[in-house]
Amino acid sequence: MTSTPVARPDEVRRHNRTTLLRLLHVGGPVTRAALATELGLNRSTIKTLVDSLAEAGVVEERVPRPGRGAGRPSLLVLPQPQAAVVLAVDIQVEHVAIALVGFGGQILGRNSWNLRGRSREPDEVITHVIESAGMLAADLGVEPIGTGVSVPGVVRRSDGYVHQAPNLRWTDVALGERLGSVLRMPVIVGNDAELGAVAEHLRGVAKGSSDAVYVSADVGVGGGVIADGSSLRGAAGYIGELGHMVIRPGGRGCYCGSSGCWETEVGEAALRRALDVPEETPRGVLLVELRELEKDPARAAEKLGEFAEWLTLGLVNVVNLLGPQLVVLGELFGMLPEEVVRQVTAEVQRRSMVSRAVGGTRIVPSALGVDVKLLGAAEVAFEGVLDKV
Amino acid sequence: MTSTPVARPDEVRRHNRTTLLRLLHVGGPVTRAALATELGLNRSTIKTLVDSLAEAGVVEERVPRPGRGAGRPSLLVLPQPQAAVVLAVDIQVEHVAIALVGFGGQILGRNSWNLRGRSREPDEVITHVIESAGMLAADLGVEPIGTGVSVPGVVRRSDGYVHQAPNLRWTDVALGERLGSVLRMPVIVGNDAELGAVAEHLRGVAKGSSDAVYVSADVGVGGGVIADGSSLRGAAGYIGELGHMVIRPGGRGCYCGSSGCWETEVGEAALRRALDVPEETPRGVLLVELRELEKDPARAAEKLGEFAEWLTLGLVNVVNLLGPQLVVLGELFGMLPEEVVRQVTAEVQRRSMVSRAVGGTRIVPSALGVDVKLLGAAEVAFEGVLDKV
Repeated sequence: MTSTPVARPDEVRRHNRTTLLRLLHVGGPVTRAALATELGLNRSTIKTLVDSLAEAGVVEERVPRPGRGAGRPSLLVLPQPQAAVVLAVDIQVEHVAIALVGFGGQILGRNSWNLRGRSREPDEVITHVIESAGMLAADLGVEPIGTGVSVPGVVRRSDGYVHQAPNLRWTDVALGERLGSVLRMPVIVGNDAELGAVAEHLRGVAKGSSDAVYVSADVGVGGGVIADGSSLRGAAGYIGELGHMVIRPGGRGCYCGSSGCWETEVGEAALRRALDVPEETPRGVLLVELRELEKDPARAAEKLGEFAEWLTLGLVNVVNLLGPQLVVLGELFGMLPEEVVRQVTAEVQRRSMVSRAVGGTRIVPSALGVDVKLLGAAEVAFEGVLDKV
Repeated sequence: MTSTPVARPDEVRRHNRTTLLRLLHVGGPVTRAALATELGLNRSTIKTLVDSLAEAGVVEERVPRPGRGAGRPSLLVLPQPQAAVVLAVDIQVEHVAIALVGFGGQILGRNSWNLRGRSREPDEVITHVIESAGMLAADLGVEPIGTGVSVPGVVRRSDGYVHQAPNLRWTDVALGERLGSVLRMPVIVGNDAELGAVAEHLRGVAKGSSDAVYVSADVGVGGGVIADGSSLRGAAGYIGELGHMVIRPGGRGCYCGSSGCWETEVGEAALRRALDVPEETPRGVLLVELRELEKDPARAAEKLGEFAEWLTLGLVNVVNLLGPQLVVLGELFGMLPEEVVRQVTAEVQRRSMVSRAVGGTRIVPSALGVDVKLLGAAEVAFEGVLDKV
């Protein structure tokens, strides 16, 4: 409930500039004519804006390939990746990845290391991230202006405080503050599944879906929610612990203090049980087994029958509570055999009254693959710095 | 991603006027000085605005009671209830209530009738609502300019289409359209629990909570979600079927096509089972029994032990998925003995990792009582018409 005083011309210009940058960043190359339509501005205003951005090296203009229309073609405006670069960090249980991502969303370079048999202590992870980021930036000759970090845990968005990341065994880590004080740039820390949802919404299969849920299984299970076009935060910025929804009362004990959590029935350990893959075998073996099942739908349905039933039950709950038109399956869920996803989808549509009401919630695997959380981390970093380009 | 062209003075004036009306409507009487601060406008602009509203009979100005401060006191601006009146309709399974609600949120008059032993057919309910509303408006000498309707079912917000209201046995009823074509005013239809959440957020115990969930039990169980200060809608406007979250796999069959739904363990029928109150006895007997238990915490804990456990499990899920700082218990849940609510709260805080992260989600009974859905229906009606006052 704030007032709208009459906007001053320089404010309007700044606003138009940020809107145009965001359009280019998310949508990619676009003609001047399309920009004018999209922004509701006249051609001369667009020209002034684009000219000044071109002069600053933020965009480049090109004559598009000749089309069918008559007359002079509208110039194509391309984002210049080097014009603004952010650092994206994806901290996983067994693996840390960093990337430098340019204006327009392109990954300019990356680096990653395994945490298996290595310390996961916050101090060491933080030190390693800072060193690697410095080297990568030097290699590429760029200077990031913001950082986004994905963490598999309960994270407070406002200051990047990690309340709990159980599978990492982190508790009460002021991650945002600690990274920010060394990197000397804005640092945004988000829950991994929340950032997955952001990436899928902006650049993945949920593009154009105003209400979508991203549900992913790694060691744990998490979810991110896009509601009415924006990512949900929850009180104090904590949200999306779908994995700790109680689905089997009296079931397996969970480290979270509850029992029968969804994660205990559909997390990585449960998938290993279903596939008879021993706990200590590397993730790769699990993926090979899943690919094998892809070729044998009957065997897939048999082996993963119970797993699919628990997946179904949890998804019915997610759909009944949140009413999405689309559910995106990430990480291990995204690698389930097509036949299993087909059956789960049919069952969710049959058993969820909200799914029936919205005409059948679609359930599809993620298309962004292993980069999904890096891309999400980059996006939340860009959110805060695009107006500074 | 829309542009902001420079605002024209009359647009700014209209915007300021609507903001001021909303402030008065929700917040009640306020001084001119406070309005100026709140809206970020100077005193002379406020004076012009308030003077024109007073002239139109929308507000009244009064000299406040003398305070301690020196100097001339700022005039108190009061909303005039008759200046804008909406019709609020609350369709319940056994009962329909209507009310005329004035600008400022005051109920000017009401009427209700029982549906027990009476037809619940949409045609007859609609006809009765229209007739009663006409008589009530004539009695009070007011003319409503908008209508809000609460329905216990899966409702599409955009056009008030009721997909399914199972306990009413309604399916595919174009309620918004049918009421609108006769009443000849905007009609907004919402899910009852969603409207409960709206009312609690604007006028009840969730005032000031940006992330709250309203969970209520009548015949069925439903929920409404306030996220980041607004009510969640979901794809196509369907949301909040908390009652059909599967909580007990393989449990009681539910009319929704699933089984083990939360509603089957914590709805009215489950509460009757817990209290040994036969199905056919009137609701009043159930309430008397609950009041008796209030006096005997030990007996309450014993009788409602299993019920409380299912309530806890469902609330853990709601908190882990949505991360609210506050859960408001409505209708039958709001009448549970204090001792039971205390125990459920302690258990939810212990078992939900998100609750622990936000510093303990509070769980409190609704304070708006039986009017909660009428007030919510009035608010969604006002949303669309306040700028026409």
